[in-house]
Amino acid sequence: MRNPYLLLIFTLIGLPLTAQLSSEETTVVEGIDRRAEAYFGVAKQIWDFAEVGYQEQRSSALLQELLEGEGFTVEAGVADIPTAFTATYGSGGPVIGVLGEFDALPGITQTASPDREERIDVNAGHACGHHLFGTGSAAAAIAVKNWLQENELEGTIRFYGTPAEEGGAGKVYMVRAGLFDDVDAVIHWHPSDGNSADAASSLSNKSAKFRFYGISAHAAAAPQNGRSALDGVEAMNHMVNMLREHVEMESRIHYVITRGGEAPNVIPDFAEVFYYVRHPEMALVDANFERVVKCAEGAALGTGTTMDYEVIHGAYNLLPNVTLGEVMHENLRQIGGVEYDAEEQAFAEGIAATFENAGEADLSTAAVVEPFQVIRKGSGGSTDVGDVSWAVPTVGLRTATWVPGTSAHSWQAIAAGGTSIGKKGMVVAAKTMALTAMDLFRQPELLERARAELNEQRGTDFVYKALLGDREPPLDYRN
Amino acid sequence: MRNPYLLLIFTLIGLPLTAQLSSEETTVVEGIDRRAEAYFGVAKQIWDFAEVGYQEQRSSALLQELLEGEGFTVEAGVADIPTAFTATYGSGGPVIGVLGEFDALPGITQTASPDREERIDVNAGHACGHHLFGTGSAAAAIAVKNWLQENELEGTIRFYGTPAEEGGAGKVYMVRAGLFDDVDAVIHWHPSDGNSADAASSLSNKSAKFRFYGISAHAAAAPQNGRSALDGVEAMNHMVNMLREHVEMESRIHYVITRGGEAPNVIPDFAEVFYYVRHPEMALVDANFERVVKCAEGAALGTGTTMDYEVIHGAYNLLPNVTLGEVMHENLRQIGGVEYDAEEQAFAEGIAATFENAGEADLSTAAVVEPFQVIRKGSGGSTDVGDVSWAVPTVGLRTATWVPGTSAHSWQAIAAGGTSIGKKGMVVAAKTMALTAMDLFRQPELLERARAELNEQRGTDFVYKALLGDREPPLDYRN
Amino acid sequence: MRNPYLLLIFTLIGLPLTAQLSSEETTVVEGIDRRAEAYFGVAKQIWDFAEVGYQEQRSSALLQELLEGEGFTVEAGVADIPTAFTATYGSGGPVIGVLGEFDALPGITQTASPDREERIDVNAGHACGHHLFGTGSAAAAIAVKNWLQENELEGTIRFYGTPAEEGGAGKVYMVRAGLFDDVDAVIHWHPSDGNSADAASSLSNKSAKFRFYGISAHAAAAPQNGRSALDGVEAMNHMVNMLREHVEMESRIHYVITRGGEAPNVIPDFAEVFYYVRHPEMALVDANFERVVKCAEGAALGTGTTMDYEVIHGAYNLLPNVTLGEVMHENLRQIGGVEYDAEEQAFAEGIAATFENAGEADLSTAAVVEPFQVIRKGSGGSTDVGDVSWAVPTVGLRTATWVPGTSAHSWQAIAAGGTSIGKKGMVVAAKTMALTAMDLFRQPELLERARAELNEQRGTDFVYKALLGDREPPLDYRN
Amino acid sequence: MRNPYLLLIFTLIGLPLTAQLSSEETTVVEGIDRRAEAYFGVAKQIWDFAEVGYQEQRSSALLQELLEGEGFTVEAGVADIPTAFTATYGSGGPVIGVLGEFDALPGITQTASPDREERIDVNAGHACGHHLFGTGSAAAAIAVKNWLQENELEGTIRFYGTPAEEGGAGKVYMVRAGLFDDVDAVIHWHPSDGNSADAASSLSNKSAKFRFYGISAHAAAAPQNGRSALDGVEAMNHMVNMLREHVEMESRIHYVITRGGEAPNVIPDFAEVFYYVRHPEMALVDANFERVVKCAEGAALGTGTTMDYEVIHGAYNLLPNVTLGEVMHENLRQIGGVEYDAEEQAFAEGIAATFENAGEADLSTAAVVEPFQVIRKGSGGSTDVGDVSWAVPTVGLRTATWVPGTSAHSWQAIAAGGTSIGKKGMVVAAKTMALTAMDLFRQPELLERARAELNEQRGTDFVYKALLGDREPPLDYRN
Repeated sequence: MRNPYLLLIFTLIGLPLTAQLSSEETTVVEGIDRRAEAYFGVAKQIWDFAEVGYQEQRSSALLQELLEGEGFTVEAGVADIPTAFTATYGSGGPVIGVLGEFDALPGITQTASPDREERIDVNAGHACGHHLFGTGSAAAAIAVKNWLQENELEGTIRFYGTPAEEGGAGKVYMVRAGLFDDVDAVIHWHPSDGNSADAASSLSNKSAKFRFYGISAHAAAAPQNGRSALDGVEAMNHMVNMLREHVEMESRIHYVITRGGEAPNVIPDFAEVFYYVRHPEMALVDANFERVVKCAEGAALGTGTTMDYEVIHGAYNLLPNVTLGEVMHENLRQIGGVEYDAEEQAFAEGIAATFENAGEADLSTAAVVEPFQVIRKGSGGSTDVGDVSWAVPTVGLRTATWVPGTSAHSWQAIAAGGTSIGKKGMVVAAKTMALTAMDLFRQPELLERARAELNEQRGTDFVYKALLGDREPPLDYRN
Repeated sequence: MRNPYLLLIFTLIGLPLTAQLSSEETTVVEGIDRRAEAYFGVAKQIWDFAEVGYQEQRSSALLQELLEGEGFTVEAGVADIPTAFTATYGSGGPVIGVLGEFDALPGITQTASPDREERIDVNAGHACGHHLFGTGSAAAAIAVKNWLQENELEGTIRFYGTPAEEGGAGKVYMVRAGLFDDVDAVIHWHPSDGNSADAASSLSNKSAKFRFYGISAHAAAAPQNGRSALDGVEAMNHMVNMLREHVEMESRIHYVITRGGEAPNVIPDFAEVFYYVRHPEMALVDANFERVVKCAEGAALGTGTTMDYEVIHGAYNLLPNVTLGEVMHENLRQIGGVEYDAEEQAFAEGIAATFENAGEADLSTAAVVEPFQVIRKGSGGSTDVGDVSWAVPTVGLRTATWVPGTSAHSWQAIAAGGTSIGKKGMVVAAKTMALTAMDLFRQPELLERARAELNEQRGTDFVYKALLGDREPPLDYRN
Repeated sequence: MRNPYLLLIFTLIGLPLTAQLSSEETTVVEGIDRRAEAYFGVAKQIWDFAEVGYQEQRSSALLQELLEGEGFTVEAGVADIPTAFTATYGSGGPVIGVLGEFDALPGITQTASPDREERIDVNAGHACGHHLFGTGSAAAAIAVKNWLQENELEGTIRFYGTPAEEGGAGKVYMVRAGLFDDVDAVIHWHPSDGNSADAASSLSNKSAKFRFYGISAHAAAAPQNGRSALDGVEAMNHMVNMLREHVEMESRIHYVITRGGEAPNVIPDFAEVFYYVRHPEMALVDANFERVVKCAEGAALGTGTTMDYEVIHGAYNLLPNVTLGEVMHENLRQIGGVEYDAEEQAFAEGIAATFENAGEADLSTAAVVEPFQVIRKGSGGSTDVGDVSWAVPTVGLRTATWVPGTSAHSWQAIAAGGTSIGKKGMVVAAKTMALTAMDLFRQPELLERARAELNEQRGTDFVYKALLGDREPPLDYRN
Repeated sequence: MRNPYLLLIFTLIGLPLTAQLSSEETTVVEGIDRRAEAYFGVAKQIWDFAEVGYQEQRSSALLQELLEGEGFTVEAGVADIPTAFTATYGSGGPVIGVLGEFDALPGITQTASPDREERIDVNAGHACGHHLFGTGSAAAAIAVKNWLQENELEGTIRFYGTPAEEGGAGKVYMVRAGLFDDVDAVIHWHPSDGNSADAASSLSNKSAKFRFYGISAHAAAAPQNGRSALDGVEAMNHMVNMLREHVEMESRIHYVITRGGEAPNVIPDFAEVFYYVRHPEMALVDANFERVVKCAEGAALGTGTTMDYEVIHGAYNLLPNVTLGEVMHENLRQIGGVEYDAEEQAFAEGIAATFENAGEADLSTAAVVEPFQVIRKGSGGSTDVGDVSWAVPTVGLRTATWVPGTSAHSWQAIAAGGTSIGKKGMVVAAKTMALTAMDLFRQPELLERARAELNEQRGTDFVYKALLGDREPPLDYRN
């Protein structure tokens, strides 16, 4: 039943295998299996909705309904965000939170086919698998609730319905609103093309739209009367490109010009450029962001334009918690990865054939659990889980909901997420999170150690201050 | 025939009009007056349609219907442009052409109110007065036709329905197709805020969209794998801005960035910049355009991207014909400017109150005809009449269809063009053009002199070659 | 004796030839001829010295000695410039000034050979012919002095020894110091490759060195600690290049980077760029200069550097005085151009053979006097005579001291200026200026009209304010 | 006697302490001590000469003389470099090489004073301590020679006199010429502010001067005729600054503009920019360099200029050899660091007081030997020892010839290098290198292991190809 690779990995990394699940654990795991189809039904509805950030009304309502039906107390519209909610069960400590996302990505659609086939009813898609994320986390929360209930245990399990992860930074507003203040540990996961529970960081990120205002004039008849807002944007970009030499080398700064003038014969009186500033450490993100602002100010001064900017989002780097990570990893090892049946294997091969380097993907890795790693210097992407991880000891995993070799944000991710491959990966995640929560409820000393580890990592004079400042949630950022 | 010094005297001391119109001329002028309301009804319909370039189906059809009803032979869909047409009456020479435009401008709307009031049914408007242009020219053609008919004169009058003047260069395709090859002189006019018939040039212009193609990559995870198309655009622009020092000082080059990337976290694999290159002389436009292309090629080479470009439009500078200009000016003097009644005066004062420098406009200038000038070095804008003027001796005038102080392409222009002020200006233009055409029919030596002047200006080895090359009409450029 | 071309020109421009010089005039002209060799000896010494701006100790002393020997009262070291001086003769009004320059250009040397042959004793040369300028003007002043003296006339003739015309703006400091306050008219000339006395303007100009200060750091080990002063310079230049679109089209802005860092492995903590800002009107120069300063300020702000700038020089556009210009032109017509003997012709042909477009130069034009023109919009170069011309009615001419086709600042100019061709051109200038001064002394109404013309051109609220502000003369700018 | 910290460090890294030197080793060490003053006399002469790269005639001759006097066979002018030489003693294998540098840095001078005091006789200085480097290495070679001679051992010791390390890449030409082909191991050291013998890499580096050629023109009179070479440089730099986003993040690219035009009123027809391109891996340096070349080519194409470039120098990253590094470290531990007497302590305190962060330097670290580290990814600087290390197993150390806290290339380094502090550091290096060479002569299996390690690191298909290509040594690069 268990993946034979697991043993090998175990041998390699030299940890004792506690292969036997307890009776309580078996009950929890089997309970999830029993309701797997129903949960996937929910996920598939959210996949169908494909609602983008802060517009996830139906997706959020569906998950609220599911949890309320299970006896959770739902608080909706938290943190001034209509689609954000908490669903709480139990009383007293410890308090364990589970994160659930459900927003789709705009501009990319796909059916559940292994061939490229766009949906015609919607121009968005779950290319990051958040329909599985939200539903799988709800499944874990419900499983834990059932266990607490059946065993009449003290403690609180709380599901966080967290909107707009993709560029909307929903969780940051929820952290800022104090919604995590009474929580002892937070559990989350993410769809992926493999299975792992690393204690890994991410890049901190702060974004803003810089808007330049000039003076319009006929570009041929009287350009001397005009001040080009686009000149402002280009001067800013020029200075930022020079700035790249003068920031720590792990810094990442990137931009697109979102408004570059209307017609060539009119000097643009408005132009806009959208920046991301990232670094493994949030302190440096803030410092570098200030320097980018100076580039914008200098550009406005030099081009005779004016400038303002709106911070769009901001996220801390993820603070890995090794204490919790080891627990999560051990449970993932117990549960194992995703094994394909013949139909899934055929689907996976179909998807793999569409990869740029077709034939190089090793599909068997979907069944493998990767060795545990601690990665303190983040790279690649960013996530608003970062802010949560600085507030509460936080632990996550990723499971193979996608065919190995699949990139996040690809049509191949949408496709697999709509099939039983997505379902299986979601079930692995739900089980692993439920077992991990049970470990934490039963071993308060783990929570103490995890908290101590967090305190040490944060430093003694840490005070939380959202990178995005005091701005309101940009509820219309996807309009 | 006419005293050339009269002009001077008139303008200098502002004496009332002394010259007597001939009986035939009086008939023509009165005929236009009699049908003024009907013509304005046609113009107002086109104003209502507010159809943008190459999409003027209803406007074109309406004018075709009007002319066909008057006995003109209509040829529609000429030069591979569905909305382009010719309407011809008569036989033998001379052949006199009259140009008529009818395209609206996108993105600007206004009712016929002196206060800012957007129409809600359409997001376009006749901010350049082409509804008056097309109808007024048709009125002139019909008047000339009636005169030819009544007097059983030999000669041909031909109306050119010329679409998409605003950035679509419709006339260039019509010149390229040889539609003006048998014409002896071309007459046109343009709505304005004053009355004049200068022999004035315009800027030659050539435009193109430069498209850069890069390689997409995650901007934080693997920017080294990406090649930014936006880098290509910015490198091109940088070199063009340096190029400004090294072109003749009357050159004008301007651009907007029409596509600047999709999302900051993705290295843009596509970006686009839209350029206009202008100069008083078309030969230098072509030379400077080639240097702009070099900037684009160098940018692609240096940024590891690829580039192509599409010429969007191109127009020669207007070649003033002094022979014809003097005739036109004299007729304009005979007809005189636009005098407001009380209601119009109130409207004009209302409009003038909305000007940036409110109170500075001298409304009485609507009634004044400006002195004749010859301006060989163009400035300001460009027009596709330029290409016509290198093919055929061409002469134009402008009349006060707008309140003095009104800028072209403003909502104030739309507003006035929807009122009797617009009608009066249109009537002045129709009368002046009709009288001018009559002069040319009656005095073939004028046509000979005009042709000789054209030949001298063009030079002996002139061969027409459209600046926009052999491209097809961009029938979808307003989509 | 007279150049036959003169007659032709005369015929063309239709003026009566007053061919006969008066006896007094003949005396003056012959006096200059008699001393021509001696004067050229002085000029040749200055040519040999080849002293650059503000370092013309020997050149200045030589001219002072010459004038003092003739009875002029010399005041040396005026306007806080060691090599500036005035030399005055006579008493009472009118007061006529004559300008004399004597600085050489650095970095270019040549012997008096028609073949390229560098001098080895000095790395500078009179490529702008100022050795002739200073000496020829002194010759004119002495001739006028003799005439005043012999005829016991009232009036004052004053020679101005004006250093550092080439980028040092010597005359501006002399104007600023009030040295021209009591003068009724100023006469000057300039070496050239032809003969003319146009009432022509020049470009106004203001220059400055912009200095950026950064923070040095090892460019490979710790670039994040550095702030590149060169980044500041490049950001400024970028914004100035964009600014070119947004200034009046006759504006000229140009720069060189005079310090661009020391070694690639060190982030530059200092960099410098040297700008000229020009326009036909000094008011716009000042306005555009302020915008260039804004580019520099913006660049410093955006690149984390600091910036200051030093205005190096500044000159008004020359204000043409038509009243005086017509007098000067008439006298130049009387005197005629430069005719070559066989040896000079051979030399000229040798020089012409070195031109890029060899064979195209028409050497006979050295003998021609060009028709009179009034050119109010300056183009080409700038001169510190500009400031003088806004203080006093000023008139100049140019004579063919160089072989036709020679560019100013070329080795060919140095070569010809060291031969009898230079001498002949200088003599033409001296005679023409002397005759013009005599006309002014004898016809005070000319001075009145010239002053009235100046007042009208300046406008009523004109107050002189040097473009270079209150800076001290940059006595070390050539170090 | 030994630094008590050493024991601590030893304990930490868990190696056996072989505290007793053998009798042969004691003889060698004492021999170096006995001649320390004489060696420092040689070093001080080279310090006085302060000869820059490829101009080290007297410095090279002095070292040749020293070694020849000791019985070495000198071959001078090797690799087509007048100041490069080898000095060989012994016969048969193994062959051990010792590197000796002796070039000074231009533009920085200082006396041996702890206060800033420039020398007035020379504008260069040993701010990188190469006078100690060359002499200390010679001292080690002589000590080994004496030991071989006294014990009649087989084997060859060879000193390499390697000029122009600072930007001249002298050793690269010597590697390219095959001068290291028969060598079994190479030993080197470098002056520093501490003592260590890490197996550490450096950055690979390739540099070039990019020269742009335009067309000169008067910048005000006819800029349209000019093509600015400086535009080419700035366009190139702009594209390189954008390129920074698209290279591996450890890449370093830096430049200075070495020629930026002559005078603002002349469009520059020549401009030059000097680039360094670095990365921890030489393969990526080569790849990135090609992309920088593309930026230059694109800039030339876009600005209408032409471009060529001259590779100035190039160095591989240092390939650490752990086998040899452990041997060197163990010997350094035996010898110990530098202990100050009272006078030296006072001097050191004086120097430390001039540091930017005065008071933070811990002077006691001069006596400490740092723990052994293996650093495979280079950072900071580059050295032409890199190429040697890919040809022969190579090992180095650094010793505290400078006051702790001193930066290389600072005046403080020159100062300390001229005092007994420099002498003591040099003696530590000479002893450590001599003991290491003795180990290698006596334990051929170390050489075998070192060679095997090198082969593995290089890979099987490694073929040496100098980054600087086939260019000749730039013997005049310091002119």
